[in-house]
Parts: sequence; structure tokens; C-alpha cells
Amino acid sequence: MHLESDSKVTIRSTVIGGPDLLVCMPLVAPDEKGLVEQARTTRQHKPDLLEWRVDAFDAGLDHDICQDALTALRDVVGELPLIVTCRSHEEGGLTSIPAAKRENLFMSAIQSGQADLIDMELSNDAAFIRNIQKAAQNAGLQLILSYHNFDSTPDQGAIIDTLFQAREAGADIAKVAVMPQEFGDVLTLMGAALKARKKGLKIPMIAISMGTLGSLTRLAGKLFGSDITFAGSETTSAPGQLPVQLLRQAMDALNVFSTK
Amino acid sequence: MHLESDSKVTIRSTVIGGPDLLVCMPLVAPDEKGLVEQARTTRQHKPDLLEWRVDAFDAGLDHDICQDALTALRDVVGELPLIVTCRSHEEGGLTSIPAAKRENLFMSAIQSGQADLIDMELSNDAAFIRNIQKAAQNAGLQLILSYHNFDSTPDQGAIIDTLFQAREAGADIAKVAVMPQEFGDVLTLMGAALKARKKGLKIPMIAISMGTLGSLTRLAGKLFGSDITFAGSETTSAPGQLPVQLLRQAMDALNVFSTK
Repeated sequence: MHLESDSKVTIRSTVIGGPDLLVCMPLVAPDEKGLVEQARTTRQHKPDLLEWRVDAFDAGLDHDICQDALTALRDVVGELPLIVTCRSHEEGGLTSIPAAKRENLFMSAIQSGQADLIDMELSNDAAFIRNIQKAAQNAGLQLILSYHNFDSTPDQGAIIDTLFQAREAGADIAKVAVMPQEFGDVLTLMGAALKARKKGLKIPMIAISMGTLGSLTRLAGKLFGSDITFAGSETTSAPGQLPVQLLRQAMDALNVFSTK
Repeated sequence: MHLESDSKVTIRSTVIGGPDLLVCMPLVAPDEKGLVEQARTTRQHKPDLLEWRVDAFDAGLDHDICQDALTALRDVVGELPLIVTCRSHEEGGLTSIPAAKRENLFMSAIQSGQADLIDMELSNDAAFIRNIQKAAQNAGLQLILSYHNFDSTPDQGAIIDTLFQAREAGADIAKVAVMPQEFGDVLTLMGAALKARKKGLKIPMIAISMGTLGSLTRLAGKLFGSDITFAGSETTSAPGQLPVQLLRQAMDALNVFSTK
């Protein structure tokens, strides 16, 4: 079966949805100095993308400080694709930033020209999603619409529906990250991603089963159609995320980093 | 869910069916000199078990030469549990040894007191299996009854049935190794093993999805109830088998070598 997405997303010189599982590393620093330092250290691990988790930023509510930090960040990351994520508290945000503030933050990230992708939850208000989707599209940014469940794994049909809902709501990339209670849930997540591809989901996808039980899904993504994996360095941003060296070691061992 | 088998098999000081995924390394040499040399080299990798693939032995048809080789082999392997396997040609045997000869070979291996386990196919005649099962039981050896399919992956119900059939036929350990055509088949194999445990299969089990697509099943066995994995050193004995260093590297990276 052909698992590459047919609607690849190209950002600068990075192709999302091609034969390679891309490695994205999150930046979770509390202030600009820490952020820039973390970006420098993290770049040494040669990730394919970087994600700024603004919900980990102490001044996440201050528009100007965020803008300055984003500009400083772009200086350091150069041509690396940069995802700007401000996770809602309900879906794993490290601090609680109200929806209106998050909307402002996304809008100014889009208008700054420094971000390449925006990641927001599918559970946000439809109007909020529509505003960001339009603004991102007009400015040439890509939108990730995501669903997180830190408690359990919905049934396979529900996961497939969520991936298609993300596409219908205008996502360029659909993301699901769910928590397994037993290994059968990990099989459910992988099977859902495979079936979504078979049912015609052509956009790039990120499908993760979290926690230690789900670790396999973080390195074997291309086997079931997932295009991006997240890895930490000193810090990680979600349960089960592997340190990047160990992730690459396991990917190399298994040779599952590519379907080529 | 409790995935450890409730009927653990203890051989010398090795427990099969406990919390650890055991690593078995095959010996596939053509003659006694090569076999002893390979056993010495292989022991350096610290496997939990060794498997002598008699079907890879040039003198597989000669009873006396096999007996001498087995005695020489035991001298080298010391207290390591030793599986004697003479695979039928239909299920992956490297040479073709007629059933009657295989029966003689198993019988003398059992009577020699040098072997700890016998691995034979569930597809053999019921009378052949019964003879070996009784002789093994009387001599205190353990029996692995195995099913191999190098073309495809049967549906989940059929795999579960095979595991229970092995138990009904007197297996102390049930083994299935099947070939995936797509990654969904790998999920099918892992799901079948999980469901067999849920349905009450308590004996230790070996469940493998072969080929590159199935590599994950070789390192993550304990997640779905599989107790032994096979790894090669310079040589391997089945498609998808990983070199032992890479297997251990990936197991360590994922920390899935144990459910502890």
C-alpha cells in the first residue's frame, strides 16, 4: 500500500509527507534568553522541524515579548521550518492561556512572517479555527489541526473521524495523539491511521500513541502513514517522547525510518 | 493487562514466560567444526537460549554424526538452554529431511540428554507429534510446536486457533511466525497474540511477523505477550531477523525489553 500522503507540504526545503519520517523537536523555554539558547542546542541534533511551545513561555500573554522572542528565534533557526504551537490547557498546555489571547498570538505569529506552521486544537471554536485557517492560508503558512487525549484511546472509528474532521476544517496536516491503557490501544491507533489512508486521507498526518506503551509509534510512523515524530533533547514536551539520540538509534536499528 | 504467561517454563536457570523478552540465537553451521565454532562466537553475545538448526547441517541425515555434534555442542554451551530444531522444508527448512528421519533425529536428541527443547511444526502428522511429545515429556524436555507461513498472514481468528491448537497438541510453548504483505498484517499478528492471552492461553508464546515490515515484533514481543525473540550474529535464519547488537540497541532505546 502507498502510505505517502498525496498532498505533500513543502516548507522552505523540507517536504512533509514524503518517504521519510521527519523529526520535530519542541522548544519549551520560559523566556527569550532560554528559548534562543535551547534553539541553538537543539539545532545541533539536526531536527527536520522545530516547534515553539508558546504555552511553556512565561510571557505567553504578552504580545510584544512573544513577537520579540519569535524574531530572535527565527534568527537562530535559519531555514528550519518552525511550528508555533500554543496548546490549550485542556489538551496539554503547560500554562493556561485563554482562547482570545491564543487567537491574538497566532494572528501576530502569522503576520510576523517568522512562523511556517501553526498548530491548534480541533476542539477550539469553529469561528476561531476558521479565522486562523484563513489568515494562515492568506499568509502562506500551513495549519496543523490536532486532537490530544491524555487519558485514553478513542475507538478506531472515532480516531479516523477526527483525522477527516481536521481535513474538513481546513488542516494542511492532521494530528492525533492519544493515551493507551493497554497495548491493544496502541494497535488501535496504528490501525486507525492506516485505515484513514486507505479511506482516502491524503494530507500529511501525525499519529501518536503516547506513554511508554506507545513508544513504538514514535519511531515507526512511516509504517502506518504518520509523517512527523516528536523527540526531546534535555527536555521533552509529552509523555513517552523519546530523547532524540535514542529515537534515531532505534530508527536506524529497525531501518523503519523510511519506506524507501 | 497481565501478559506474562501463567505457565512459565524453567530450563536450567532460565525462565521462559517471565517479564523479560528472551533472546535466542540460531546456529546454522554445515558441520560439527563450524557448529562448535559458531556456538563459541555466538555465546559471546550472551543470548538467553541457543537453537541448533539441524536442517542447516550437511550431515542432518546421519544419526551418529548428529549425535557427536550435539555432544560437542553441549560441551561448548554449558548451561545455556538448547533448542533442537529440524525444520521441515515446507516451513523454512534449509535442506529437505524426510519426516521419518526427523523423527529419528528428535528421538535421539531427546534420549541423549543434551537437548532442552525440541521445536517441530504443528503441521506434522498427529502420530509423529504425539510420539515426540510423549518422549520429550518423559525425558523432561520442553516442546515447542510451531507454525510458519512465509507467504502471508492468516486472519486473526486463524492465528489464535493455531496457538490454541499447539497447546492442545501438547506444546509447552506455542510459536507462530507469519509474513506480512502490508503493515496491517503486522497489526493483525500482534493483535492475535494479545487476544490469545485474553482468551486464556497461558503457556509461553512466540509470535513473530517476519520481513522488514515485521521487525517491530522482534523487539517489542513483551508488549503483546511474546516471550522469545530470535536474533542473528553474522548469519540469520529467517527473513527480518535482526543482528543481535541492533536488536538490543533498539530494545534498550525503547525500554520495551521488559514490562517491569
